Amino acid sequence: MKPFVTLVGAGPGDPDLITLKGIKAIKKADVILYDALVNEELLDLAPEHCVKIYVGKRAERLSTKQESINQLLVDYALTHGHVVRLKGGDPFVFGRGGEEIAFVRKHGIETAVVPGISSAIGLTGLQQIPLTYRGESESFWVITGSTKDGNLSEDLYQAVKTDATVVVLMGYGKLKEIVELYQSYGRGELPIALIQNGSLPTERIALGTIDTILDEAKEKLLGVPAIIVIGEVVRKHQDFETLKVHFHE
Amino acid sequence: MKPFVTLVGAGPGDPDLITLKGIKAIKKADVILYDALVNEELLDLAPEHCVKIYVGKRAERLSTKQESINQLLVDYALTHGHVVRLKGGDPFVFGRGGEEIAFVRKHGIETAVVPGISSAIGLTGLQQIPLTYRGESESFWVITGSTKDGNLSEDLYQAVKTDATVVVLMGYGKLKEIVELYQSYGRGELPIALIQNGSLPTERIALGTIDTILDEAKEKLLGVPAIIVIGEVVRKHQDFETLKVHFHE
Repeated sequence: MKPFVTLVGAGPGDPDLITLKGIKAIKKADVILYDALVNEELLDLAPEHCVKIYVGKRAERLSTKQESINQLLVDYALTHGHVVRLKGGDPFVFGRGGEEIAFVRKHGIETAVVPGISSAIGLTGLQQIPLTYRGESESFWVITGSTKDGNLSEDLYQAVKTDATVVVLMGYGKLKEIVELYQSYGRGELPIALIQNGSLPTERIALGTIDTILDEAKEKLLGVPAIIVIGEVVRKHQDFETLKVHFHE
Repeated sequence: MKPFVTLVGAGPGDPDLITLKGIKAIKKADVILYDALVNEELLDLAPEHCVKIYVGKRAERLSTKQESINQLLVDYALTHGHVVRLKGGDPFVFGRGGEEIAFVRKHGIETAVVPGISSAIGLTGLQQIPLTYRGESESFWVITGSTKDGNLSEDLYQAVKTDATVVVLMGYGKLKEIVELYQSYGRGELPIALIQNGSLPTERIALGTIDTILDEAKEKLLGVPAIIVIGEVVRKHQDFETLKVHFHE
């Protein structure tokens, strides 16, 4: 029995959005540590002897502390062998996968990473909003809305001045602040989309401009987190033109 | 027979890095249009009657013009039914997927998108370089090195001034320019990684700082394209510390 930890990205919600490589890792897991954003259907793919442990965090409530998760990874690897750490989205797009892998390695345990579909790329893709578009957007910038100190990330203050498509993850609670930031730079006309429960049957979207999105969100969305996409490319969403007509009525 | 076009991301090279949803789309394809970066093993999953057409572009040589690809998507959808457009990485991270889907929709044909593992996220992940790290990097910015006019993207001139982890795709030919840009901002000590043939058995990596990477690339890499990752997080790569010792000898 060789201690080994594999970080696996489970994708944004739809269980079909995991990779084959991710499934192969699950099928060889002795222990799975999974969090709240992981679709539990994926756990059924594990071998019968596999121990499945929920270590989910959601909005900081009912959380298993990060230090405990790190320690569990090491302890289970030493006692059980192959530990799969199954994380929503991609393991390295926020979510502290980097800290987990560093801790495990420090204990001399070998590691591997299986990338996943990040909600930043996957949920916009499913909604057919292209993050880049030749001649219109040469880049996209993915920023966390949830920083250590609770403020908007300094990177957002830079991003508002650029032409990059901006995706904010875990920033729905700060939507009003983000809107005001863009308005203070005279960018109220910029298209913006909010996607909730992306890739699941309950998916919802709100489309608008910086100036209209707070009203749209009130009308279209439930009170749950959403990813935020800001940039001219949002105009490519197939409902955007209809929306504009609606605006001018 | 209903005309329908599905854009599918095949991932960065390893055929196990496609999603289950992508495989399901291929299994229901009447026609597949695929490009150079797609692993041809994936084509074997298609039904027997499926027509498979190579429309690859590589460094602008032997290219099928984008206009022809757009037209082929429409023509085959109308004559054969379900067309899968299989693209390397993710369909909307550069690669002109946005234009293809817009053209198809303009012809009244329904579309869907299956996201893929972008090399920006996937290849860094496999190398265990976390794009974000709590307290160190709150964002990552993915930029094309291949703009319409042949110059460095204006976005790179902005990115060099920020703390974002920067990933440049299709920019290996401009590595020297990029290095000089970072040096002109006094950022010669910043860690940087180049990943070639990522996720394939022939994968290679060069690690260094802005000031050393051109020499490292000469020593470590073949003369083929690579993705470029710039930022403090590159220090998390397990070989980086060894490298630093080597530097100070």
